[in-house]
This record gives sequence, structure tokens and C-alpha cells, in this order.
Amino acid sequence: MSPAKHPQRPGGRSARVRDAVYTAVGQLMGEGRPDRLTIPMVAQRAEVNPTSVYRRWGDIDTLLEEVSVAALTREGDEPPDTGSISGDLTQWAQIIVDDITRPQRTRYLRAMVSAREAVESCPCWEQRRGQAKDMLARGIERGEVAPTEHQVLDHVIAPLYHHVVFGLPTDRAYAERLVGDVLAMARPADKA
Amino acid sequence: MSPAKHPQRPGGRSARVRDAVYTAVGQLMGEGRPDRLTIPMVAQRAEVNPTSVYRRWGDIDTLLEEVSVAALTREGDEPPDTGSISGDLTQWAQIIVDDITRPQRTRYLRAMVSAREAVESCPCWEQRRGQAKDMLARGIERGEVAPTEHQVLDHVIAPLYHHVVFGLPTDRAYAERLVGDVLAMARPADKA
Repeated sequence: MSPAKHPQRPGGRSARVRDAVYTAVGQLMGEGRPDRLTIPMVAQRAEVNPTSVYRRWGDIDTLLEEVSVAALTREGDEPPDTGSISGDLTQWAQIIVDDITRPQRTRYLRAMVSAREAVESCPCWEQRRGQAKDMLARGIERGEVAPTEHQVLDHVIAPLYHHVVFGLPTDRAYAERLVGDVLAMARPADKA
Repeated sequence: MSPAKHPQRPGGRSARVRDAVYTAVGQLMGEGRPDRLTIPMVAQRAEVNPTSVYRRWGDIDTLLEEVSVAALTREGDEPPDTGSISGDLTQWAQIIVDDITRPQRTRYLRAMVSAREAVESCPCWEQRRGQAKDMLARGIERGEVAPTEHQVLDHVIAPLYHHVVFGLPTDRAYAERLVGDVLAMARPADKA
């Protein structure tokens, strides 16, 4: 197999390689092999030439990152729109809990942690930040008092992921408590 | 080597085995082998019989857990006592940041995440919870408005560990921001 001449051609060989590689990563993860995936392992399972994988992704961390982002954002890019920040954040946090507590997703996240040495930034948090920003901006337009998007990431997203990767209890009630806390943070300090 | 007849005798063979095993775990971690330590690997490095290690700790997760707790609490069990909750939490969070951002400690934490499948509870959070409880109780005695210890764990400790294990930026300024947020949560809602 020689490397593709037109790697950007949509729906062509390039897309087929990507699908095969994503599927292979998902399968290997699903089989509970989060310890240290390698590009040759993935290439073999995907039945593609390792050289193609190296050329396109460079290293296993970049590949895992990309697959994780794709997986983490699969539920749809649009955050809830319930008419209140409280409702939006609660529903959003519950979607995230349901998602990241699935055993296969938890394995993904732990594999991301193992792969972390080399990776600098994490697009999945950027994705979450964008969603938080949208929900908060809508609330502010409606005249609601809102926490910042950083507060939402630090005090809702971070504890949820922390609990999941360290195997601490994580459920919808916990998510609701975190949302309550971050909303309490946003109370205007000296309006009275 | 036959197993010790008096495993609880303090300062005796039992303590020597523990020290050798802890040191071996620390060395292997320090050499950057967080992927999947095994009891035979640790026993070989510690020059003790694997059977003794299995008998005492049962499995590698329990051993890693115990070593981590010992490591995480090494700075001394007493949390800061500066005269205010704000001062205590800020100093405490900074000690934790300085500690968990050291490369060797970060590797420990990532190894704990990898080892997590089997472990149910995590004594290190219990340790942190106890310290938080002490600091908050002193503040309440002084008449300060205090967040709960769960809020401190969820909104200071969890984001710090989350940032470290996922390789996101973690420094004292970030810790200070988290402490500010958790104190804002504790503002009395309708005192005005």
C-alpha cells in the first residue's frame, strides 16, 4: 500500500483510512486495552499501512486525542436550550455524566490520561468551553446572573471527569450539586 | 525466602519489607514506568519474595494505593493554620499544587488512574477531606462563613488533580482562583 496522493479528497481513500483507524481505536479500547496503544497495533487492526497512520497523525497521542474529541462530541454540538442557565447547565451536566460513566468512555478517558506526557493542549476542553460559553451568553442576554465559562469548566466539568477517572462515585445527583454550587458562585455579591 | 512469621513486629522484617517495597515502587515510578506495574516487577526490584508481597497487599492496586497515600500525605498531616479560612485554603492549595506538579508525583497520579478499574474508594481523598474539615471547623469557631468540606474537595482539589492528570496548566495562581471561587460559594445568600 502506497500513501494516498490526495489525502484531502473527501469521501475517498483518506476518509476510508480515517474511518478504519477510528474504528480500530474504538475496538481496541472497547476490548479493555487502554494501557498503551501503539500506532502499529492500531494500523494492524485497521488493516492500513502504519506509514499512512504516522504520516497523518504523527504519533499515537495525537491520534487518541482526535478520536477522543470525536467521541466526546458525538452527542451533537448543540448544548441544551431550556430557557434558563440553571436548566441548561443541569441538563448539559447530566448528558455528560451519562456519557462519561459508560465503561467504554471511562476507558477512553483513562487512556487519555496515560497518553498525556506529550500532549500540550486538549481540544475536548475547548469544545466544552465553547458549549458553556453559548449557554451562558444566552442567559446573560435574558438578563440572568451567570458564572464565567472558566468557572463552569473548573467547577462542573473538572470534578465530573476527576471523579470518573479516579473511580469515585459519579451520578446525576452529583452533577446537579456541582451545578448548584457554580450558580451560587455567580450570585451578585453586594447588590443589596 | 520464607514468609515472615511475625508480620506485625514493628521495625522488624515486616517494616524492612515495607520500606523495600515502597522504595521499589518509587524507583520504578521515578524511571517513568507508570503503564502497568506488576507485583513481580516490584518484588524483583525490592529483592523480596513476590509471595510476601501478594500476601501482604493482595494486588498491585492496593499496593499502589497505599504507597500513593503515604506519598500524598508525606508533607505532614497538619494543614496550615493562618488565622483565616481564606489564608488556610490558599496556603493549603499552594502546597498541593507544588506537590502534585512535580513530575514524579504526576506520574504517580497517572499510574493511580491506570490502576483504577478495581479500586473502590480512595483513602487519599479521605485524607484531604479530613484536612479541609479541620480548617473549616476552626474558621466556623472564629465566626467565619465557610463552604462545606465537600465543596472544598469538589471545587479546589478536584480541578487541581484534574488539571494535573490531563496535562492542563496548573500553578499557584490557578489554585488561588479556585479558592476564591469556593469562598464566593459560601457567601451568605440573603443576609442583606
